[in-house]
Amino acid sequence: MRRKPKTSAYQEQVEALNGILGEMCDLAGVAMDLATQALLHANLPVAEQVITDHDRMLEMSAKAEKQAFALLSQQAPKPADLRATVTGFQIVADVDRMGALALHVAKTARRRHPNKTLPEEVDGYFAEMGRLAVKLAHAAREVLESQDPQDALQLEEDDDAMDDLHRHLFSVLMDREWKHGVESAVDVTLLGRYYERFADHAVLIGRRVVFQTTGMTPQQLIETT
Amino acid sequence: MRRKPKTSAYQEQVEALNGILGEMCDLAGVAMDLATQALLHANLPVAEQVITDHDRMLEMSAKAEKQAFALLSQQAPKPADLRATVTGFQIVADVDRMGALALHVAKTARRRHPNKTLPEEVDGYFAEMGRLAVKLAHAAREVLESQDPQDALQLEEDDDAMDDLHRHLFSVLMDREWKHGVESAVDVTLLGRYYERFADHAVLIGRRVVFQTTGMTPQQLIETT
Repeated sequence: MRRKPKTSAYQEQVEALNGILGEMCDLAGVAMDLATQALLHANLPVAEQVITDHDRMLEMSAKAEKQAFALLSQQAPKPADLRATVTGFQIVADVDRMGALALHVAKTARRRHPNKTLPEEVDGYFAEMGRLAVKLAHAAREVLESQDPQDALQLEEDDDAMDDLHRHLFSVLMDREWKHGVESAVDVTLLGRYYERFADHAVLIGRRVVFQTTGMTPQQLIETT
Repeated sequence: MRRKPKTSAYQEQVEALNGILGEMCDLAGVAMDLATQALLHANLPVAEQVITDHDRMLEMSAKAEKQAFALLSQQAPKPADLRATVTGFQIVADVDRMGALALHVAKTARRRHPNKTLPEEVDGYFAEMGRLAVKLAHAAREVLESQDPQDALQLEEDDDAMDDLHRHLFSVLMDREWKHGVESAVDVTLLGRYYERFADHAVLIGRRVVFQTTGMTPQQLIETT
């Protein structure tokens, strides 16, 4: 953590909020990492761990909202401070969703245990989507720390790679050669979507940080990027 | 619209914001209604209409965020007013998502045209999920107008009905008798999820209104309901 000169008490509290949000991004990344392992190796204890650890995420989420409300009720905050607070609430919602998506992956692995959920044919896709998801969660954390709009825009590139993988995965599914039946196709469809949405929320966190630092709305940002 | 005595200028602006959000809920409901028709009847012009109308939704969304920021930058708002503003931003995100999900349904119908996306066997499920989705969107609008926590909790019941339908739909898909192939199963899986998530966001809007009027956080609400 870099120390900045002459930060106000308010600013320090905003940084504390961003610190909690960054920790939550890390937790979401760890959860998706473990959930992917559970999925690839039909590892029940690891799936159970993700499910148990999710409570920690909910605690952090409540803590972050409390901190954001404390900020909101302060006397005469500046517009930029209010922006940071509103953005904070939105980021809590994004990272909550990332945690919930990792939880869905873990629960799918648990539901199919002792069988493996995925046909070997698509293991490589999910290993790579898992790696990208974890990378995106950590990048979101770094953006929260650096507050650098350039870092935030970098997130979009990794998301493009995720979208490509997701598209290829669908072409494998839709191929007439798919031999693994409908149940497996349904699992692969939903799992693919969980990873893709996880990445989308990480990108949104980046966009919100840009907004926090530049004052551009998400809509304006979409138009300019 | 009921007129309340002695509302402050700030309060009037909060009501204006809620009015825009309510209109957005209506638009999302109309979009899901049309998208469901397009899906059930392989109706391309109706699917195209949903896709074109989505721009209107994005305009309203930008307008709502602008209104919320104007509120936020006022001098010395009361805590309850700030709460309404923060909630406003969250509801914009929910209703945006509802619109995006209706758009996904319309785009799926367009992609499969001139074929029908759904096997007849599941038409009934989607007709009913569509009806519930539209009902939920309108209920969310009413809650925004009435600000009545009891109305908000009613939304949860319709969402339970949606979850039941979604579960039954999956048992149809997973049945060994499914004769419509993998491509169709993938479509049905994703479409089912779009309706279910649409309903979840309507419920969230209800929860946020409860928070706006009672000051309870979403987390506390989940624990007490």
